[in-house]
Amino acid sequence: MNDIKVFDCTIRDGGLVNNFHFKDDFVRGVYNTCVEAGIDYMEIGKNNSPSLMSIEEFGAWNFCIEEDIRRIVGENNTDLKIAVMSDIGRTVNSELLEKKDSVVDMIRIATYIHQIDEAIELSTQAHAKGYETTINIMAVAKVNEKELDEALEKLALIDVDVIYIADTFGSYYPTQIAELAQKYTAIASKVGKQVGIHAHNNIQLAFANTIESKNNGVTFLDVTISGLGRGAGNCAMELLIGYLNNPKYKVTPVLDFIQNYIVPLEKELDWGYSIPYMIAGQLVQHPRNAMKARDEKDTKYLEFHKKSLEEN
Amino acid sequence: MNDIKVFDCTIRDGGLVNNFHFKDDFVRGVYNTCVEAGIDYMEIGKNNSPSLMSIEEFGAWNFCIEEDIRRIVGENNTDLKIAVMSDIGRTVNSELLEKKDSVVDMIRIATYIHQIDEAIELSTQAHAKGYETTINIMAVAKVNEKELDEALEKLALIDVDVIYIADTFGSYYPTQIAELAQKYTAIASKVGKQVGIHAHNNIQLAFANTIESKNNGVTFLDVTISGLGRGAGNCAMELLIGYLNNPKYKVTPVLDFIQNYIVPLEKELDWGYSIPYMIAGQLVQHPRNAMKARDEKDTKYLEFHKKSLEEN
Repeated sequence: MNDIKVFDCTIRDGGLVNNFHFKDDFVRGVYNTCVEAGIDYMEIGKNNSPSLMSIEEFGAWNFCIEEDIRRIVGENNTDLKIAVMSDIGRTVNSELLEKKDSVVDMIRIATYIHQIDEAIELSTQAHAKGYETTINIMAVAKVNEKELDEALEKLALIDVDVIYIADTFGSYYPTQIAELAQKYTAIASKVGKQVGIHAHNNIQLAFANTIESKNNGVTFLDVTISGLGRGAGNCAMELLIGYLNNPKYKVTPVLDFIQNYIVPLEKELDWGYSIPYMIAGQLVQHPRNAMKARDEKDTKYLEFHKKSLEEN
Repeated sequence: MNDIKVFDCTIRDGGLVNNFHFKDDFVRGVYNTCVEAGIDYMEIGKNNSPSLMSIEEFGAWNFCIEEDIRRIVGENNTDLKIAVMSDIGRTVNSELLEKKDSVVDMIRIATYIHQIDEAIELSTQAHAKGYETTINIMAVAKVNEKELDEALEKLALIDVDVIYIADTFGSYYPTQIAELAQKYTAIASKVGKQVGIHAHNNIQLAFANTIESKNNGVTFLDVTISGLGRGAGNCAMELLIGYLNNPKYKVTPVLDFIQNYIVPLEKELDWGYSIPYMIAGQLVQHPRNAMKARDEKDTKYLEFHKKSLEEN
């Protein structure tokens, strides 16, 4: 139980809803909530390179420049650790500061399986610079088992602290997540590494799959406040805190943030369960069509289903 | 797998959102959807006695008078069976027609544990009149285990076809549901009875708990279209059909109904996950305070949480 780490991704996953255009007041609200609620890690955004994308268009938290982070967290003299996500292909490794010059504690590396060697290189470099690291293999539901096993065996040998199961398509049922968790933890535990779970709520199983992962040895549990995240959203922090029932974690700061920040945000942004995302989850498809349908408020679900079937 | 029965409660549980004031067109839509989707049972409402409550105030589907049902289903020459729910204390047993005079196939009896003898009497009478019956013991999370065991042993000996687990407070986690399912099925299977699950979505586990129940021998699985039901709602039919992945069940009629009937209804009625219901679920409380908060669009969640804690 003491190994459990509750990992907040509100800004990073929420940033996919609004292109990372959160105001400082909101980001600071999430930070203060995480500190007061006893959350272990907060992922404050991505560290994409400004040499590759425009900050005006893609928002400050898509880049996480050191001075932006410090404007929110100062020196971060708290028990909350700060993480940023590195997307393979959108970061420039040499831009990563030495840990001693940064308030960031952890680099989380999001990679597709075909980029695993680049992810390993980045993890090794980030580790050498003094950071904790994770590698999150995305789109696992479409990776063949042998290839996955080989990738996991590679990761067991390198400098990475946590290997993440990422349910990119929001398609897994609890029994499937249990099998994956057993596979990951069997490999990771032999070499003293941890396993994490990042679930999506396309078929209303983000919370259930997070619980199921924990019951199978997964210790890093990703959440967002009120499930904020693209489309169907994520495992809700307030649900997981209630479940863990550990006095270390407090639900009242989370409720406070929800009533003051999420209730107004719900009038501006749209996330949560919806039929197009459910269909994408059931068919193990990337939600790009669901994103479009939702943006256009298209409720011709029969047609959406028919077109989705044709893509399979 | 062939034992599985998908049980629709859209009108009965949805009736708790609008006092059973559904128009015939909507009820007929649910009926046609259930027939086309291959659903096994449809619960069309409650059979409360008009001698005890006013039809004008509480809506036709709170009473399920034979001629009202026949206006929708005719002689029901389909594979779909029709059920109604009897609330102990709100029905008059002698008003129940003989099965040969009714299109209703099943009487589902909702009872608190202290009323179990009345439920047994009604089940015995309904069975003698020719109906299938179920007994749904409500509020199980607050029943002590010895009392529950005794009630289940009693039910094993009487004329009842299905014994239901009813997660009245929407408070159960999957491991707890698995234990309950094992307890119920151990007793029921010895005497050739089936077990059912009626889940609520207060902590976003209605679907997960339904899956977990099925994995532990439960065969009657309650759903509503799009999760329609009071407060946080129920296990969604479209999710369960996707999961079962049995050609007997078709998702397209359900999507058709959702786009034509549920999308407009969502503009009138309010259901789905919300913080007050989550708090009630986490604290294993009746959602009466959550119902009030939601009706009043009260988003002072911190205060709601504080008051709820005081009630525990």
